[in-house]
Amino acid sequence: MRCKLCKKNEAEIFLKSYGLRLCREDFISFVKRRVIRAVEKFRMFSSEEKILVAVSGGKDSLALLHILKDLGFSVCGYFLDLGIEPMSLSARNMIERFSKRFDVPVIMDFLSDVFGASLPEISRKMNRPACSYCGTLKRYFFNQRGREFDVVATGHTLNDEAASLFANNLRWDVSYMSRQYPVLPAELNFAKKVKPLIYVSEKETAAYCFFKGIEYYEEGCPYAKGASSIFLKRKLMEIDEKRPGSMYRYLKGFLDKKRREGFMMETDSILQPCQRCGYPTTAGLCSVCRMKDRVLFDG
Amino acid sequence: MRCKLCKKNEAEIFLKSYGLRLCREDFISFVKRRVIRAVEKFRMFSSEEKILVAVSGGKDSLALLHILKDLGFSVCGYFLDLGIEPMSLSARNMIERFSKRFDVPVIMDFLSDVFGASLPEISRKMNRPACSYCGTLKRYFFNQRGREFDVVATGHTLNDEAASLFANNLRWDVSYMSRQYPVLPAELNFAKKVKPLIYVSEKETAAYCFFKGIEYYEEGCPYAKGASSIFLKRKLMEIDEKRPGSMYRYLKGFLDKKRREGFMMETDSILQPCQRCGYPTTAGLCSVCRMKDRVLFDG
Repeated sequence: MRCKLCKKNEAEIFLKSYGLRLCREDFISFVKRRVIRAVEKFRMFSSEEKILVAVSGGKDSLALLHILKDLGFSVCGYFLDLGIEPMSLSARNMIERFSKRFDVPVIMDFLSDVFGASLPEISRKMNRPACSYCGTLKRYFFNQRGREFDVVATGHTLNDEAASLFANNLRWDVSYMSRQYPVLPAELNFAKKVKPLIYVSEKETAAYCFFKGIEYYEEGCPYAKGASSIFLKRKLMEIDEKRPGSMYRYLKGFLDKKRREGFMMETDSILQPCQRCGYPTTAGLCSVCRMKDRVLFDG
Repeated sequence: MRCKLCKKNEAEIFLKSYGLRLCREDFISFVKRRVIRAVEKFRMFSSEEKILVAVSGGKDSLALLHILKDLGFSVCGYFLDLGIEPMSLSARNMIERFSKRFDVPVIMDFLSDVFGASLPEISRKMNRPACSYCGTLKRYFFNQRGREFDVVATGHTLNDEAASLFANNLRWDVSYMSRQYPVLPAELNFAKKVKPLIYVSEKETAAYCFFKGIEYYEEGCPYAKGASSIFLKRKLMEIDEKRPGSMYRYLKGFLDKKRREGFMMETDSILQPCQRCGYPTTAGLCSVCRMKDRVLFDG
C-alpha cells in the first residue's frame, strides 16, 4: 500500500490512532511535526535557547535528542550514571556511540561522584527499594546541571504522561494532577523543564529509532519489574489498542482544558532554597541533602 | 477462617477491597450498611417516601429491591418488558416469582403496549442498533411510571458508575461528568432519581443474591455483546483485581469532591416540557415522541 501523504512510496508503518499509513520519510516528518507542535503550543523553548536533554539510553530520550538536533536546536545530552549494573554500563556505551555518530555533545555524571554513592548502595543503606530515591535524585541532578542551560528537556512520552495522569486520576489526587504540565517554568534555582514528546507515543519513538538506525538500551530497569506505574501504563495501552487514539485524547483533552480554562491548575507553591545547596524545597534541608546525611554520615 | 466481625462463624466471603473476611450474616449486614450509607449521604429518600425500583431481572436490581424491602422502605418494583426474546420472557418469569416469594408488588409494562412497538421492532424500523434507543426508552417510561411515586431507584452499581465515569473521563467530557451524580432531583415532569448501590460492587450483589437464594437472569442482554462500555468496565475491574479498592476510591473520590467542593457540578439546564407528552426536553418534541412518529407513522 502507498503512503497516504506522498502517495508515491510504499507505506512502512500504520499509525492506528490517526488511521494513517506512511512511508519512512513521511513518518519521520510526522513525528517531528508533533514535537514542533508541542514545543510551540506550550512555548517550551526557542531556537536561541540552550537545551539540556536528559538521556537514559532508552529509545524515548535518544529519539528526543536526535529529533531536536535534527530540527536545528542547540542541544546537549546529559546522562546520570546511577551505577545499576549491567544496565548503566550498556546504556553509557550506547550513548557514547550515539554522541560520536550524530555529533551531539553529552555530559556524563556518575551518581557515585556527584552524590557519593550509587543507587544500589543508597538503596541498601536506606533499606528501601531503589525506586523510592531514583526520581528524586534524577530531578535533583538534572536541575543542578540544568542551571548552565536555558531549559532541561526529558523524554517523557504520551504513554508516560497519560499513565502518570491516570494514576493520579484514579485517586482524584488533584494536587498531583494540578502539577502535571509539559512545561514547568524556572523557579528559584529550578531550571525550566519541558517534555517535548507528550504527543509522541512509545511505539512511535521505537519506530523512529528503528528507521534512523539508532541503537538503544531495550531491556528496561531491573528495579522497575512489576512496578505499579507499569501496570497502569499497560492497561491504558490495552484500551488504546482496542480504541485507537484514546490515550492521546485523554492526555490532550486534559492539557487543553488546563491551558485554555485553567482547569485543575496549581495555585500554591511555598518553596524556599535549601539551606545547604540552594535547591528549592518546602523544608529547611532538601530531600537529597537529607538523604546524603543518612547515607554518607549515618545522620 | 473465622468472620472478622463476629469472630464466631466461619467466614464465607473475602472482600478484597476492604481486606475483610465475613460470615454470611455479617456480609448481608455489610451490604445493607453500604446502601444505608449512600442513601443517607446523598439524601436519597426517607422511610416515608414511596420508591419505585426499576428491575431488569438481573442480580443488581433484584438485590436492590430485596435490600430496600428488607430495610423497611416502601417499595414497588417496575419491569419494562422490551420484547427482546428469549431474555425478556425469562426475566419476567423470574421477577414474577421474586414478587410472590418476597411479597413485593411489581408493575409490569410492555414496550409494545406503552410505546406501540418492541425494541427489536424499533431497531429494525429505524435501521440502527437497539442499544441506541434502549436507554432513552427506559428512562422515559421509568419517569412516566415514577410520577406516581416519590422517587425512582435504579440498580446501578459501583462498577456501572465507575465505568460510566471512566468513559467520560477518558474523553474529559466534563459536560457528562458534571451530570453524573447518584441523586437527580425532581424537575419539571421528571421524577427524582437515585442510585442506592453506588457503594456496592457487582461481585457483592451476586454474593448477596446467592446467600439470599434470589434467582436472577444471568445471561446479559444479547445486544450488549462487545459493547464498548463493557470493555472499559472490564479494564477497570482488571485494575481493581490487581489493586483492590481502586474502583471504589475512583468513584467515591469523584463524588466526594462534587458533594463537598462542587467540583465539576452541572450549571446549565434548559429543559422545557415536550409539547405532546410533557416529558422534559430541550427540543419542542421529546426524543421518544419523535421516535414514535418515525416508527409508527413513518414520520
